Amino acid sequence: MENLISALQKLPSVGRKTAERFAVFLLNGDKNLRREIFTAIEKVDENLQLCRECFHFSENELCGICANANRNRKVLCVVEDSLDLIAIENSGAFDGVFHVLGGTISPLNGVGPDDLKIAELKNRVAHDNFDEIILATNPTLEGEATASFVFRAVENLNLKISRPARGLPTGGDLQFFDASTLQKAFSGRVTF
Amino acid sequence: MENLISALQKLPSVGRKTAERFAVFLLNGDKNLRREIFTAIEKVDENLQLCRECFHFSENELCGICANANRNRKVLCVVEDSLDLIAIENSGAFDGVFHVLGGTISPLNGVGPDDLKIAELKNRVAHDNFDEIILATNPTLEGEATASFVFRAVENLNLKISRPARGLPTGGDLQFFDASTLQKAFSGRVTF
Repeated sequence: MENLISALQKLPSVGRKTAERFAVFLLNGDKNLRREIFTAIEKVDENLQLCRECFHFSENELCGICANANRNRKVLCVVEDSLDLIAIENSGAFDGVFHVLGGTISPLNGVGPDDLKIAELKNRVAHDNFDEIILATNPTLEGEATASFVFRAVENLNLKISRPARGLPTGGDLQFFDASTLQKAFSGRVTF
Repeated sequence: MENLISALQKLPSVGRKTAERFAVFLLNGDKNLRREIFTAIEKVDENLQLCRECFHFSENELCGICANANRNRKVLCVVEDSLDLIAIENSGAFDGVFHVLGGTISPLNGVGPDDLKIAELKNRVAHDNFDEIILATNPTLEGEATASFVFRAVENLNLKISRPARGLPTGGDLQFFDASTLQKAFSGRVTF
């Protein structure tokens, strides 16, 4: 049991107490649940790879999105990681295909352009026939810097290159938004 | 002391404990601090009014913004309340003048258009020479409904009517934004 607890404790934002609760739950639960989790984790090592097109996690050479014939193959959305891809996918905001960079350029953390899938992106964009690339990195300093770098890598390919709109998120109160968000919302204001 | 504590406890998000801490701080503090607060509160009743132009809190007939000759009097920003005005003002996003509605239309809470400064807005817009009205109500259902109502009240006056941009706020991670925010960010995407 101690091994189980200390293994579970390595999950993100799981402390000793939560790990103990998970462990007791697993031990109290029926054998099928334990087998289900055990098998699912075992399968990861056997099957999981990165999609050879977009570098999203995938069980096959091509992920479900890249293999889907109904996706719009004229628009490519570049994201930092698979969690961002999943959020965009779940929102229904986008029906094109993705490219997962695998992080942001971050000299302080020793992450340079060569550590990301930027060369693969250039290669992909040069061979596939895209009309538009959406640079959907995070609205942070590192995300902006990475978007600029990717922009320079693909700008001479005669494509439309865009960024998601910046402005007020849905919900919330103007009085609590930061100055930068309000500035972008006002400078980018749109006709009603 | 008990009177002081129960009075302080009426402030927003101040409970018994915090009120006690405030009270002890005030009683321990020097007499000048007590006098400063006392006088500041006393002055509110004496002096505070709503600006006759924009309905922001003001010590004079005209608030500091409406009285400022350097503001751009061609652009009017309509907000729900004075806290929103202060947030926009502090962000430096806007150099025009404001109009404070005093809330949102909210039938459930018994707030109708006549409870807000909408007639005053129509009157103001009809007489002053604005080029643009920015409807900066909150990005919530009630804020949107109020903006639509105000839009219909002023739309036939041949003015540009705009809304702050909707999209990704500054900071944060795409994976944590709600679906509606991601949808607006993608549908309103802008050329890099």
